[in-house]
Parts: sequence; C-alpha cells; structure tokens
Amino acid sequence: MDQLTTENVVTNVPQLPATDDEFGGVVVEMKEHMDSDVFRTLLKASMSQWKLQGKKGIWIKLPIDLSNLVDTAVKEGFRYHHAEPKYLMLLYWIPNTINPIPANASHIARVGAIVLNDKCEMLVVQEKMGILRGVWKISTGIIHQGEDITVGLTREVKEETGIDTEFVEVLAFSQEHNVFFGKSELLFLCMMRPLSFEIKIQETEIAAARWMPLQEYAAQLSVQEHGLRKYITELCIAKAERGYSGFSPFRVTTDSNGNPSYIYFNKGDLKKIDDKSSVNYS
Amino acid sequence: MDQLTTENVVTNVPQLPATDDEFGGVVVEMKEHMDSDVFRTLLKASMSQWKLQGKKGIWIKLPIDLSNLVDTAVKEGFRYHHAEPKYLMLLYWIPNTINPIPANASHIARVGAIVLNDKCEMLVVQEKMGILRGVWKISTGIIHQGEDITVGLTREVKEETGIDTEFVEVLAFSQEHNVFFGKSELLFLCMMRPLSFEIKIQETEIAAARWMPLQEYAAQLSVQEHGLRKYITELCIAKAERGYSGFSPFRVTTDSNGNPSYIYFNKGDLKKIDDKSSVNYS
Repeated sequence: MDQLTTENVVTNVPQLPATDDEFGGVVVEMKEHMDSDVFRTLLKASMSQWKLQGKKGIWIKLPIDLSNLVDTAVKEGFRYHHAEPKYLMLLYWIPNTINPIPANASHIARVGAIVLNDKCEMLVVQEKMGILRGVWKISTGIIHQGEDITVGLTREVKEETGIDTEFVEVLAFSQEHNVFFGKSELLFLCMMRPLSFEIKIQETEIAAARWMPLQEYAAQLSVQEHGLRKYITELCIAKAERGYSGFSPFRVTTDSNGNPSYIYFNKGDLKKIDDKSSVNYS
Repeated sequence: MDQLTTENVVTNVPQLPATDDEFGGVVVEMKEHMDSDVFRTLLKASMSQWKLQGKKGIWIKLPIDLSNLVDTAVKEGFRYHHAEPKYLMLLYWIPNTINPIPANASHIARVGAIVLNDKCEMLVVQEKMGILRGVWKISTGIIHQGEDITVGLTREVKEETGIDTEFVEVLAFSQEHNVFFGKSELLFLCMMRPLSFEIKIQETEIAAARWMPLQEYAAQLSVQEHGLRKYITELCIAKAERGYSGFSPFRVTTDSNGNPSYIYFNKGDLKKIDDKSSVNYS
C-alpha cells in the first residue's frame, strides 16, 4: 500500500491508490495483480470515502492482465467507458445527476487521395478484399489516433502504391453513420501532388494500381452509381481546370507533447482580408 | 443449445452460437447468462473448430451483465477491441499475420457555432466549468455517434442558449491530438444563421450568454493568445463582409437505415463548372 495518498492516510482506512482529476473525480490506475476479493474490499471502502468527500466520477483503468477484476468492478456498479486492446476503462458516476462525461470517441477519420499527374491521369487502385474489389478507386485509408490528416494521406498513398506525394488541399469531406460497430465516419477527400511516378503496389491489400485518364475513371459504371464517387470526379476537374478552392492546413498550436495542430480553411478567401488591410479592431 | 447453427450440428461438437462475418471471421454475441466454466469449455471447443475451418477474426460481444465471462475470454487469448457503457467487444485473431482489423474509433467530432446577428453581434457564452471558465466563447459541443454535424450544431446552440439557428457553412476545421484519453479531435467551425434572438441559458453548464459586438469579442485577451480563436474572428469577418466561401452540405447517399449522408464542399466554386457546362465525359 505504498501508493496511498496523503488524503487516504489521514482517513486511516485502507483504500485503492487514486489521483484526483480536474473535474472533481478520482482516477484509479490499477497496475499490480490483486486478488478479486481484496479488490472488492478495498473498492467498497474507497467508494464510501469518495462519496463522503463529494467526489463525482470514479474511473478505474484495468490493464488486460487484470481482467480478473472486471467482474468485481461491474458488480459494484461500474460501467464500461471505453477499451483499447490492452486496457479497459470503467466509470462510476456518484451524483444523482445525469453523467456529463463525454462518451467514447465516436468517429473514424478516413482519407481519400486524389493524386493527379501532369497528363490529367489519376492514381487508382483495386483492393483485394471488400465490396469495392475489382473497382478502380482512389487510394483510401484510416487515419490513426494521433496522426495528422496530411501525414496519414501521404502514408496511405505510399503504402498502397509506392508513390510519394505532397498534400495540396482538402477538396471536400463527408460524414456517414453506422460504418463500423455503430461508429460514424468522416471522409476527407484531398488533392495530392505526386512527387514520384513509378508504381509499386502493396501486395497484401492491393490487387492493382495504375495511372488512369480522368475521363476513363469518370466513365466507370460504379462512379455513376455512387453519389460520393461522382463528386470525386467533379471536384477533381474543378480543382485541375477551374481553380476550385478547398481548405489548406495551417499550424495553430502545439499540444503538451509539442505536436503541432492544424486548422484547415479557404486560404485564398481569407487572404483577401489581409491584402485589403481593412481589419481594424481598435 | 437451441441456437446451434447448422454448421455446428454437423460437426456434432457443442459450440458457442456464432454467425459468419463478411471478412472470413465469426461473431459470437452472448446474450444469456452462462457459468464461466461452461463458457470456457464451449469456447475452447469452438475455437478448435474455427481454426480447422480457417476462420480469421473471432469476435465476442459480452453485454455488461455477462462481465463474469470477460476474464475467461482474456485467458483464452482474446484482446479488447472496444467497449461502450453496456457491452465489451473482444477479438481473437487466428492467422499468423498482422491483424488488419481497424482499431476502435479514433476521433471525437466537436463543433463550434459562429452565430452572427444583423448588428454584427456574435452569440457568446461563458461555461461554468473547465479551463475556459470566465471567457466569452462561441457555443461548442460534441457531436454524438450517428448525429449529423448540422443537426448537432443546431442542438448545441439551442441547448446552451435557447437560440434557434440554421446551418450556413463550415468555415474551417481543425485537428488536435491527445484531447480525451489519447483520442484525437476534429473541430468544425461553422457559421449559423440565428432564427430567434431571446437568450435562455442552460443553467447546468452555462454561466452566462449574450450577443457581443464582434470587435469586443476580437479584443479579448484570450482571443489574441490562442491561435484557433484568433482564426474564429478572422473567418467570421471574412464571411460577414467579404464573401468567404466555406463548405456547404449536400445529401449524397442513405445508409441501410435510410439515414442521409452529407458531403461538404465549396459550392460556389463547384457550381462554376455546371454553369459553363464544359464537363463532358463522352
């Protein structure tokens, strides 16, 4: 019980090691193996104290190695909040009010790369699996947790086709629901500039890749059928031939780990202001 | 064992009820209470069969009422995939290849509403809790799983301030990392048109709300300090005074439940094409 906090020692009742969070709650991060009966006794005693102290949310983070304690926490009234492969986070909300804690992450972020070369040919792939097998489509992929959209796009195109690219602009995005276990999906359609041209496909996921004339892509039956893919062609032509303005990324802040954040907006239209120097807040 | 599938009956070995998924795996959706020893025996037998049958991913969905089975599944090699308050989803990947199953949802979708009236006053609120307490800020909120951005914005503004609004445009969006349990966040800054003007605040979360002259908002120290909020003012002025073009929503498809999906793009710039009628794929 080396990890008892000062507050706990004062009350002189054995409790689970906990730290306060910034919203009036406590976080119990279990790390060492514990018998489930010992855990139950400590949890009951701790919860009594936390209730007396007016705490609100109680979080318990259980590494997967401590799955023997899940049932005990649930029996004491905890509910699942979220899980990742190696841990489960449980939550107990003490007050008689609606729990205001935000739910688990709700959206998958996907990107689609519109890569056009100087001959107005688009980089297209055929996937080995899934409902779009056999259809020539743009390279798409899922953005990882913690990964910038621009970085994820470059990574996906490189992985699938071997082509190096640089980010130009977000041309459009879409939001769709019930995509994966009830989660919603945001798909960012982005224009990418190719920096290399020799295709080398990823054998595990991709059946084929090629540079396809835009007209040929647009004429595919599947393009006609599907609303979103129809817009891909239109946006691509609008960007290539008519100066369509999408959203460009600008660095705004850094988080506590020093990573940059980006804001995406219509650069050309915002620049109009700066040029005219008419903004005066004084 | 009423739920045994035909396939299972043929093998004549008691197994857990399972359905095939579309990626060569099986899904076990546990619903009835079961003793953990019985579950272990059935799970071991089932897994042997599934391996022989060349199955790939094995999913087990355990309602929170069956938390007594979590430890058994983990001991048999299952890992957590995701959890929602009332269930835990576990996954076991059979092949000796990297598990290609997408991770749990990675992003929180947040919205910020820029609501401007005819006098160039912006609807601002002060929150009761959190690091922005005491700062006049735009109304923001988290989009629910399955909720359209446009719907979530209208809901949040109504809840916090009592003001009815209609969606105009996405002016910009930002992506930030490590926001909530390591998850990333996408924030959509949107222009909303007010349809009512009398403020009625939500007492639980909001300390105050008012219509504030844009110049006064822009002059706040906190606006100057924070990159993102600085852009809010600039985008707002660009939209109000200079015809800034953001992204507008268009319905594209409906999912299996008949819900619409939306794609957001620069409507004015795409329309240029249609006007010129120069797109010809033939």
